[in-house]
Amino acid sequence: MLFFTFFTFFTVSGTAVSDPIVHDAEHYILEAQFGERWQQEDRQLNRRLAELREKHGTPPNIVHIMWDDTALGEVGIPAIQSVRGFKTPNINQMANDGINFMRMYTEPACTPTRAAFQTGRYAVRSGMHTVSFPVEYSGMDAGEVTIAEVLDKAGYNTAFFGKWHLGDTEFSYAHKQGYDEAFFTPYNQVPSMWIPQAEVANVITGLYPDLHGEDQYDLDQSHQPRGVVWTIEGTKGGPSREWGPPPDIKNYWDIETEAQKRTLAFIDKSVADKKPFFISYQPILTAFFPDPREKKRLTANKNVGAEGLVKLDAFVGKLFEHLQSQGVAENTLVIVMADNGPFIHYGPRGMVETLYRGGKGDFTEGGVRVPMLATWPGVIKPGQIVGDILHVTDLYTTFANLGGAKKYIPRDRIIDGVDQTSLFLNGDGFSRRDYVMIYQGPNLAAGVKGRFKRDWKNAEVGLSKNEFYDLFTDPREMHGEMIEQFHVKSMFNRQRQRHELWIKKYPNRPDATPGPALTGLENVRPETVEIYTAPVDPKKLPFDPQEVSEQPLPFSGSDL
Amino acid sequence: MLFFTFFTFFTVSGTAVSDPIVHDAEHYILEAQFGERWQQEDRQLNRRLAELREKHGTPPNIVHIMWDDTALGEVGIPAIQSVRGFKTPNINQMANDGINFMRMYTEPACTPTRAAFQTGRYAVRSGMHTVSFPVEYSGMDAGEVTIAEVLDKAGYNTAFFGKWHLGDTEFSYAHKQGYDEAFFTPYNQVPSMWIPQAEVANVITGLYPDLHGEDQYDLDQSHQPRGVVWTIEGTKGGPSREWGPPPDIKNYWDIETEAQKRTLAFIDKSVADKKPFFISYQPILTAFFPDPREKKRLTANKNVGAEGLVKLDAFVGKLFEHLQSQGVAENTLVIVMADNGPFIHYGPRGMVETLYRGGKGDFTEGGVRVPMLATWPGVIKPGQIVGDILHVTDLYTTFANLGGAKKYIPRDRIIDGVDQTSLFLNGDGFSRRDYVMIYQGPNLAAGVKGRFKRDWKNAEVGLSKNEFYDLFTDPREMHGEMIEQFHVKSMFNRQRQRHELWIKKYPNRPDATPGPALTGLENVRPETVEIYTAPVDPKKLPFDPQEVSEQPLPFSGSDL
Repeated sequence: MLFFTFFTFFTVSGTAVSDPIVHDAEHYILEAQFGERWQQEDRQLNRRLAELREKHGTPPNIVHIMWDDTALGEVGIPAIQSVRGFKTPNINQMANDGINFMRMYTEPACTPTRAAFQTGRYAVRSGMHTVSFPVEYSGMDAGEVTIAEVLDKAGYNTAFFGKWHLGDTEFSYAHKQGYDEAFFTPYNQVPSMWIPQAEVANVITGLYPDLHGEDQYDLDQSHQPRGVVWTIEGTKGGPSREWGPPPDIKNYWDIETEAQKRTLAFIDKSVADKKPFFISYQPILTAFFPDPREKKRLTANKNVGAEGLVKLDAFVGKLFEHLQSQGVAENTLVIVMADNGPFIHYGPRGMVETLYRGGKGDFTEGGVRVPMLATWPGVIKPGQIVGDILHVTDLYTTFANLGGAKKYIPRDRIIDGVDQTSLFLNGDGFSRRDYVMIYQGPNLAAGVKGRFKRDWKNAEVGLSKNEFYDLFTDPREMHGEMIEQFHVKSMFNRQRQRHELWIKKYPNRPDATPGPALTGLENVRPETVEIYTAPVDPKKLPFDPQEVSEQPLPFSGSDL
Repeated sequence: MLFFTFFTFFTVSGTAVSDPIVHDAEHYILEAQFGERWQQEDRQLNRRLAELREKHGTPPNIVHIMWDDTALGEVGIPAIQSVRGFKTPNINQMANDGINFMRMYTEPACTPTRAAFQTGRYAVRSGMHTVSFPVEYSGMDAGEVTIAEVLDKAGYNTAFFGKWHLGDTEFSYAHKQGYDEAFFTPYNQVPSMWIPQAEVANVITGLYPDLHGEDQYDLDQSHQPRGVVWTIEGTKGGPSREWGPPPDIKNYWDIETEAQKRTLAFIDKSVADKKPFFISYQPILTAFFPDPREKKRLTANKNVGAEGLVKLDAFVGKLFEHLQSQGVAENTLVIVMADNGPFIHYGPRGMVETLYRGGKGDFTEGGVRVPMLATWPGVIKPGQIVGDILHVTDLYTTFANLGGAKKYIPRDRIIDGVDQTSLFLNGDGFSRRDYVMIYQGPNLAAGVKGRFKRDWKNAEVGLSKNEFYDLFTDPREMHGEMIEQFHVKSMFNRQRQRHELWIKKYPNRPDATPGPALTGLENVRPETVEIYTAPVDPKKLPFDPQEVSEQPLPFSGSDL
């Protein structure tokens, strides 16, 4: 039975495209039904893109902004903001000027979503399925092919600014992963509190043990690092440098300011170069400490998430002005989105559910369904609400197609991202996806197909009632059904079997690739050296530290 | 201390208006601060209303539509509807043409909200605090003064069509409570299933015991009625009649069709009379059985609530066309709203939370914060989102003010409704209310003041953490706070003390007023006679049935 199914796919795929991208198995079920319609659409879309390229002299510029931990509905819908006590007029204006996507799926946490965006693959495939924390001693493998690498081959200027969060090994640095220019934090925002001032403010992390009173029981001086690096800058082929002074409460927000400044400057440089540009700016948005430069909060809500969004919103306004003044507004696709749901579990006050249940880390819709808005004057029609399913990996394939770079997408691995050019240009109802597989770390937790969702994680033997959901009638996944939805049981079984078969054929990387942390910095500090230097003399140990770092780890709570 | 506070109010109120309406005590705290600004606004607003009256020859017409069980956000926000699988384009258009209110509070269930709307008073004051079910043998007291009585005195044609749900006693019939014309169901939609066909479909209610197999233990034939009345029609001073054939699955939806037909006809009649009209149409919206006339559902969602909204939406479109064709569109305020939150506890599939937690019966925001939209071409500015607090009782006072009928509002009782003319005409930020008291049945469950909310019901001794909420940062009332919000504790204490003092001065009616059910119908059926006839010979009883009906009842679950 499996073999039959397998060969069926192969034939369909084989007849449709020569040198095809390998998609997840589910894709071919749709292609078998809609492949001809898609081909017709593609002919029209390709003509349209060729006309635009003719008109502007280059393929479109792409500015991608992706921030943290925001529930679907929190931006882009002014009515909802009126009940939450903050306003993002510039982001909301994007809903008037373009598309407000209501069903963009991501991975459930920062590192996995960012890996999926960069590679066009579910994070589980690149091994980047868990959230990295300082010091991680691992990172995204050099063998992954980022969207920057793909667009670079088609002649794009590429830049990454902001929160990278894809590892602290040198091979995983953004400018080693295909970006011409990079200014990035290897970690998330957690190190914002790892400063002497935070230690004094009773957030005792132990990073500065000289601030403790004497602890006679504190024997092992090798167990944790004595410092951290906030930001690294580099250019393709050029040196890597730590940016800014050593971490201090006065400087954290300077990272954001600098990332924004560099975003605008990179536009100017590319316009001067007469080259198309791709910029992914991933704001730090917030810190675990309020901005010490501010006397008064910007919102009635006052929580760090709302404050961060309002600050980002001001930059979005500036960005549009800048694109206009540089004469490239019409040839630029701007996308703003969140990376996963709100930080509702042990997160800061005010990070809450909006339309969906769950948040960061969860496989319920609240964890993986994020706000996303897109504008492209004259190409994307204004004022659209799009209810179709799309996935963060689709941006990879879609950007590649828009940039004329589809041929540079690797063919030796599964690319989950499908080309959604038709959805962006033709609007509601034109998605080429009706399914998503939702992983938590390395575990497949749930499957989505259209309005139906199957929870594989909490399902219990004995008609547990936690298994099947209809997302139109039960959007919050509160009332699991069995009898009412048994008709989708084997449908999801087949969907999963196809998915597993494809993994057998194209295996996942088991984990993030290990390596020494924070090496290769030109302006290295003593604290940094301590991080990547063996803290005890390895010769005194009966085991090899390198071999230790390669041991598999169990997936645990803090990993997501 | 209480006395001091009391006299303070009296002075403020006494100096501000002669022959003032008695409001809830909290109002005077605001009036003391903003009374002068309000007076200035009122002078301008009165000029504006006088100009409009001059232009149109009458004060404005008012069409009020209030349906059941809908969460804030379910209508008026197309982005949310796109994730729920249904569309109400005509109602949504009202958000473009007028105001989308994001903070309209009601009572938590049908009967209380409808009583509050009719009387301008919290339902607890009129004794109408619990949901009436067939057969109830009680109803809204004749001494209550409805908005129809108030507007009638100012020369309005008044009509009520649809779900009345304010008792089954003759004195509580809609045309005995001030409406010139009435066509109404004395109960809610529950009797829609009390038909022989439903009994056969295994919804055994016992209303038709001849459908049971023989039950040798069924002794008491007086315990329940043997039939029910669905709809009553009448005119002021005229006879009351049961409308339509005896309840049958084929006919339930005819009630809605007829209510809509009469709504449009009443507009025609009033235009012909050259009189302003006030119509409250309260749709049945749905039944506990699908509409047997339909072969196919109207929505992808398919649940009864969504289906009902889409059907209602078509009527809203027709209504606007009709007002236009009758030449009165410009002089008509149209308000559409729900009566309380969704029926999430033991209600039909697909009735779910949207932005807020809880539903019908709950004091959390999900129970009492409903969608409301209002249009008034040329008077209400288009495209507004209003985040101010208002309460369903405010419609009473506001309608009275718009109709030049404020002087007919009774002065011998508390009128909770405040005049919100300024909010309707001037928009966001112009509410004259920043507080709400939320009752569940006769019990005060929670208080709202601005962004703060205090839960009095679940608060436990010992810092229970269930007590204080910030509705901007914790809209779903998930994370009760104590230490963080102790600053509002005594603020809420004072608010409640003022409220209780005022109740002492102007006492509530304890309950709905008792009486025989469904009397006074001209075309009485034998089943109806059985309902109001003592089922056993009263002479054989050692107690008086009338005295029995006057005994107080405990407040229980099914009451809300």
